[in-house]
Amino acid sequence: MRTFDYIVLGAGSGGLASAFRAAHHGARVALLEPGALGGTCVNVGCVPKKAMWYAAQAAEDVQRARAFGFEVSSGALDWGHFVARREAYIARIHASYRKRLQEAGVALIAARGCLRAADRVEAAGETLCAPHVLIATGARPRRLATPGFELGGVSDDFFALRACPRSVAVIGGGYIGCELAGVLHALGAKVDLYARSTLLSHFDAELGEALTASMRAQGIGVHLHAALPDVRRDRDGLHLEHVATGDAAPYEQVLWALGRVPNSDDIGLGTVPLALDEDGHIVTDAKQDTNVPGVHAVGDVTGRTELTPVAIAAGRRLSDRLFGGQPDAQLDYANIPSVVFAHPPLGAVGLTEAQARVLHGDAVRVHRARFTPMVSALSDHPQQSLMKLVCVGPDERVVGVHLFGVGSDEMLQGFAVALKMGARKADLDATVAIHPTSAEELVLLGD
Amino acid sequence: MRTFDYIVLGAGSGGLASAFRAAHHGARVALLEPGALGGTCVNVGCVPKKAMWYAAQAAEDVQRARAFGFEVSSGALDWGHFVARREAYIARIHASYRKRLQEAGVALIAARGCLRAADRVEAAGETLCAPHVLIATGARPRRLATPGFELGGVSDDFFALRACPRSVAVIGGGYIGCELAGVLHALGAKVDLYARSTLLSHFDAELGEALTASMRAQGIGVHLHAALPDVRRDRDGLHLEHVATGDAAPYEQVLWALGRVPNSDDIGLGTVPLALDEDGHIVTDAKQDTNVPGVHAVGDVTGRTELTPVAIAAGRRLSDRLFGGQPDAQLDYANIPSVVFAHPPLGAVGLTEAQARVLHGDAVRVHRARFTPMVSALSDHPQQSLMKLVCVGPDERVVGVHLFGVGSDEMLQGFAVALKMGARKADLDATVAIHPTSAEELVLLGD
Repeated sequence: MRTFDYIVLGAGSGGLASAFRAAHHGARVALLEPGALGGTCVNVGCVPKKAMWYAAQAAEDVQRARAFGFEVSSGALDWGHFVARREAYIARIHASYRKRLQEAGVALIAARGCLRAADRVEAAGETLCAPHVLIATGARPRRLATPGFELGGVSDDFFALRACPRSVAVIGGGYIGCELAGVLHALGAKVDLYARSTLLSHFDAELGEALTASMRAQGIGVHLHAALPDVRRDRDGLHLEHVATGDAAPYEQVLWALGRVPNSDDIGLGTVPLALDEDGHIVTDAKQDTNVPGVHAVGDVTGRTELTPVAIAAGRRLSDRLFGGQPDAQLDYANIPSVVFAHPPLGAVGLTEAQARVLHGDAVRVHRARFTPMVSALSDHPQQSLMKLVCVGPDERVVGVHLFGVGSDEMLQGFAVALKMGARKADLDATVAIHPTSAEELVLLGD
Repeated sequence: MRTFDYIVLGAGSGGLASAFRAAHHGARVALLEPGALGGTCVNVGCVPKKAMWYAAQAAEDVQRARAFGFEVSSGALDWGHFVARREAYIARIHASYRKRLQEAGVALIAARGCLRAADRVEAAGETLCAPHVLIATGARPRRLATPGFELGGVSDDFFALRACPRSVAVIGGGYIGCELAGVLHALGAKVDLYARSTLLSHFDAELGEALTASMRAQGIGVHLHAALPDVRRDRDGLHLEHVATGDAAPYEQVLWALGRVPNSDDIGLGTVPLALDEDGHIVTDAKQDTNVPGVHAVGDVTGRTELTPVAIAAGRRLSDRLFGGQPDAQLDYANIPSVVFAHPPLGAVGLTEAQARVLHGDAVRVHRARFTPMVSALSDHPQQSLMKLVCVGPDERVVGVHLFGVGSDEMLQGFAVALKMGARKADLDATVAIHPTSAEELVLLGD
């Protein structure tokens, strides 16, 4: 039986970050991972998703270049060529992690860990022991038992594609569904997107509306308030039942994007009675502690703001607390910014207008700008941008920033800092604009 | 003799903004402009410059798309086609201004105004009278009397081009020279750039170094510490003398980018003794007042941070003070952000590292990140990004943000708000990152 100071189950974003930070503080760390290093983010999430988004952007870039007057032909993506580049990029990340783990002295064990006690983990027939165990096993795409579900794929299967499907039905209006639909459309597939309610219902309603309008203008069939379809295959392809089928049917592919479920079911919770919520997430407190002393959890398995940087930050703070002599270290989960890599991208931090109105009633004041960015105007593209500030109270404290349009992805981070600092609208007004940009609209609202 | 509340000389960014704001407050306004509405920014500055930058980006986009695996050919820009689009865009801005001026009841007089007294302006043979006069006549490219100067053009001439020159010498390492060189290179010209000292010497030295390295890697001949050349024409083209000539010589075009001089010499300063600085700028105080009561000045003619948004903000504040019952309204000139539309773009707000070290000595702490952004890595492009925070004191107050790389243009504005609010590095650290972006590097420095 090997003993460590810290055993980490899962080498995704949260597990890796926490393991590195613990080792940095001098802890002897074991990191258990049966799959690829980097977890969802690096292998079947953020990284390959953003890569595909860049490819999709490149398709749009070529169209824009033609509109500008470049004498270039309009050709399809050699999908296999690009995926090879994407996977080479990911392989370099794997190699970098492997090297850094070695340098940090973290014991990487390529096996699934299974809790045998609060301080004991079994992996590959061996028993490991440590006073602190971190569960960072992440989540996976939700699969259902509905008729024909198995005829479709999930996001993991999207990343396994080696050619562009001719026609696709994407089922799910959350950010994953929207991102997949946007990329597939831009790369040449006929796409119908089916959402149970509206698109991006966790975001400010105007962002969802703007995206819906934009997708439809681009030629994506967006079907809102659609029932969950059954799937049937005939010789023409895949058919959806219980929904008014879109123009792209029958489909070569169906992709399910119905959310994600935590990987909490095969880590030995029969022996260690960790509290789970009704969806199977491990319940954690503000310090990432579970109900079992010595057992902690971060990242998607906890269901708390399922984003890579959140898992990373939570994992680092936890190791700072456990091994770095920082007893108060913990992640503040308020006002976490996030971006959806749609076409164009969108992003938000803080309260939606609706949330703000529930909390603050008539004290809410909204400022918004709708405009055609110069790059769209120059190419006769109708794409508009929308920027929206949600403010509260007589000093108009900014409680929400909502962006839709070209450049939103890189624009949001600084405004997220300002919002977290307690920015009032006057602070934005007092900052001189940068011209000509889209971001300047946020400091010129109402001036 | 017509009387007004406010006479504005010059319908550039500052004059228009101040005129609109004054009219909004109920003032009767005359606006005098002998040229095109919008001044430098709209006609021969920010707007057509950014348009050409978009065209240059599109050329790079096509190369990237090919590297990604798109089966597209690589063709040149039909420069005339694009310029027609650019000019149509500008014509729409003109029309919009014209309509808004009419709606606001501003009397637009298409003539040069000439001061006859502090409250009196002559224009097109007519005398206008008002208690407040604003001088917002802007600036123009500097021209010299050196041998062969007239064989080259200035930035105004660049915008008059209707085809891409084969080879160009750009003389001047300020932002205009760098932007022109970058666009011309990306659109297919062979370019040598000659700078008296280094590139962008008003910016943090590392940004200038990063841009120099990037330009050279792209194939632009960057010649630093070069004497001011004479120009001679022979049948092969234009030759530079007194400099070690670059590979692109002889040149089809020479473009001078030697700074700008204020338009203060033909507005009647013989009759109204306005104080000028040694370069001819009208001297103004914190409230944009000149030494002559009732005469005010904003924008490039004052030489104070020659940027469109500065002229706009100063012009608006001035009208708020004169006509809006806001006696304290004035622009704070501290911490004005600016962006250079190079390839990639760069931007900065606050103190350079060198400035901070002069002011704060050993209390300065610098954090920087150098990285290859994902979009470059995916296309095997060597372009790196650089982000640099300059902090001061035990609480690491952020006094400078310096960005070089893809997305810097849209990234800076929010961080400028945070800096102006007094952000400490801990405020950036406390903000959760947005992944995968470049902007997130700024909140992960040292974490």
